[in-house]
Parts: sequence; structure tokens; C-alpha cells
Amino acid sequence: MKPAALVFDAYGTLFDVHAVVARCESFWPGHGTQLSQLWRTKQLEWTWQRSLMRRYVPFSQVTRDALGYACESLGLPCGDAQVEALMQEYLRLAVYPDVPDALVRLQADGRRLAILTNGSSDMIEPLVAHRGLKARFAAVLSVDSLAVYKPAPEVYGLAASRLGLRATEIGFVSSNCWDALGAKSFGFSVWWINRGSAPLDRLGFTPEGTLRGLGDLPEALAA
Amino acid sequence: MKPAALVFDAYGTLFDVHAVVARCESFWPGHGTQLSQLWRTKQLEWTWQRSLMRRYVPFSQVTRDALGYACESLGLPCGDAQVEALMQEYLRLAVYPDVPDALVRLQADGRRLAILTNGSSDMIEPLVAHRGLKARFAAVLSVDSLAVYKPAPEVYGLAASRLGLRATEIGFVSSNCWDALGAKSFGFSVWWINRGSAPLDRLGFTPEGTLRGLGDLPEALAA
Repeated sequence: MKPAALVFDAYGTLFDVHAVVARCESFWPGHGTQLSQLWRTKQLEWTWQRSLMRRYVPFSQVTRDALGYACESLGLPCGDAQVEALMQEYLRLAVYPDVPDALVRLQADGRRLAILTNGSSDMIEPLVAHRGLKARFAAVLSVDSLAVYKPAPEVYGLAASRLGLRATEIGFVSSNCWDALGAKSFGFSVWWINRGSAPLDRLGFTPEGTLRGLGDLPEALAA
Repeated sequence: MKPAALVFDAYGTLFDVHAVVARCESFWPGHGTQLSQLWRTKQLEWTWQRSLMRRYVPFSQVTRDALGYACESLGLPCGDAQVEALMQEYLRLAVYPDVPDALVRLQADGRRLAILTNGSSDMIEPLVAHRGLKARFAAVLSVDSLAVYKPAPEVYGLAASRLGLRATEIGFVSSNCWDALGAKSFGFSVWWINRGSAPLDRLGFTPEGTLRGLGDLPEALAA
């Protein structure tokens, strides 16, 4: 399995969406983890539901709406200052510790690397820049131009067309199992980063490999 | 607001999907509620994801897969006997206590009533019959013929075309907020049955009314 290019999901795969817990905790002590989880859950649900409803709005809007919902649901008072502060956190999410070195090694092997994300450019571009990862990626691709979210096949098709490659030449890497399997359904070879030892989603597909972290990917690809 | 017909969601609206808790509890004491919740969560997520992937399988298959996943995720040993027993439970889910009388009253007002459900006919038909509700409904409509799940607009369009009514003539009733808002996005008048006092999903639409139970619907429609 020697993909000509590797395409990475961003949120949850390269960047830790739950890095917002500390800031949540500072506003609402004792509720940071619960808030972060509900925020993420609604954020994802609404990407799927809005896509099916054909009522796309950019990920930044979905993310903001989901934060408001999560605070309301948990009874946490949430003013403009808290919303803005937490939306800013999304522009500087921590990278998982094994990510920077893994990207250097994967790039050194001569492969083109790209990001394919639900994130609108107002969210993903500042984040990649802030974390010093711009030089790693030949392309940072967003679903925003398509106005539909993962795992719609046209999203994965965007990566193939923009990289000028056939689906079978692309390796896709995501920690979101449904995203990995959506990419597999489209025709990519996929590696699922399963940091939490979750079961495989039963969506009719299996990945080429399941890894505990991105640090294991260079070895998996060399095998 | 005087709809010519009322269309009801089934699972969670008329029938209590968490009626399976007792049976779950009998197999895995102490885990019934947690299992039922995760089972339902994955069941819904996969309807959205499979629809976007264009990899539809019938709801009975999604439900069976989600049960297997939920058991695996929680570390609960689940053999064929348990799976079959719990799938049987789905064919005789309890109705919410205020449902039978509300349906009689709504029908007595001269309206046509129908069900529009994700459930495949092998699931919904035995359930409606078992609960003695067949005579209430002029039609029991399933997404199965469309091979896409709610909240895709074509699902709500099926109800309009099969009832021979314009969208604006139809009142839609669901306890699943995203389903109510998907129907609203399509053009129905909608009533959200919010039994758990949840916040409104932020999907860009608001229902005509939000009720604590189906028993409040006849009065809301008369207002």
C-alpha cells in the first residue's frame, strides 16, 4: 500500500478538539469535560443533519451554534465574551503530541500531504498557521466550496480532483471512524487513528489499518 | 393552523425506544439504561452517515448493527439469543401513555393521520399492529422506498405525494427536534413534542409549537 498522497482529517485527528476543556473549566468549574463533549456531539450531528436537509452553513457557524446549545442544555450561563473566547480557542487547538514529527517523516518519504476538513477557511487556515504546520501541506481543502459535510462522497472527490490523483492513489487518515469509512466507501485507502480503543463503526467498510496514534503511520505505510 | 392531515414520527414520538431498557437490564444488570442510550445514539448517527455516504441499508439492519456496537463498546457479551430477543422488543415497543387517546381525538376531528418513519416495513407494521393502532392511520409510510433517511427533504416529500396534499396542508409531529425541523425546512407546519425539556436544535428553523406531550396536541391545534 504506497499512496502517492496522504490526506488528513483535521479536527480530532491532527488537532485535539477537547483542548478547549481547560478554557471551559475556567468559565464553568466542574463542567469543562461535559460541555466539551456535548459541544462536539451537537457540532457533528448538525453537520450531518444540515447536509441532509440541504441547509449548509459554514462550520464556524455550526460550531458557534453548538456551543450555545451545549451551554443552554447544561444550564451554564454563556455571554458573548465566553462564546468569543471559546471560538478563539478553536483557532489554536493543540496538536496531538505525535503529530508534528509524524508529518515530517511522512513528508520526507516524498509524499504529498494535504488536509481535508469540515472546517471553513476562517477556522482551519489560522489554526494550521498558528501550529506552524503550513509547510507540511501541499493543500488545505475545505468542504466549504461544496456546501456539504463529510461523509458525502463529493467531499472525498474534492481531494482527488484537487490533487489530480485517482481515488486509489490516495491514503486517507482520520480518527473519526465514520470519516475514515466514508473515505473508504469513496475509494481511498484509509487508516483509522483509534486513540480511544473504540469499536469499529458498522458502516459496511473496514480500514486498511487501525493505529493507536499518528506516530505509528510511517511504519504502517512502510510495511 | 388547521392542517388537513397530521403526519407522525414513530420512534420516540409514538413509541418509546427506551422501553427496551427492562429487557437490556435482564441480560446485563446495571447496564440497561446506558446500553439503550448508546444503542439509540449509534442507530441515529448511522442513519445520517449512511444517507450521506449513499450506503443505505434498512433500519432493521442499522438497528441490529447499532445494538452489536453498543454491546461491544460497553464490554457486554451479546450472543444471537440476546440480539434476537432485543430486536423482537422493537416490534412491541410501548406507546407513550397519552398517545392512544390523543390519536382518537385527533382522528375524530376529521383529519387524516399518517406515520412517516425511518423504520422499514418489517419493523413498523408489526409494531403498529401489536399496539392496536392500525385503524388510526390512513397510511404508514417508510423511508425504505427512497433509500435515504430523515431529515432528507425527499422523505417529507413522500408524505405529501402519498397523501396527495401540498406541504403547507400537512402538520408534522415529532419528538425528535431535528426531525421536526427537517419537516419544517421542507415546508410542513410542525409541532415538537419535547418531553425532556431539551433546548431547541439550532438548525435555522422553529416549530409552530412545542408541547410537553402528545396529549396537548388536540388543544394546540384547536387554538
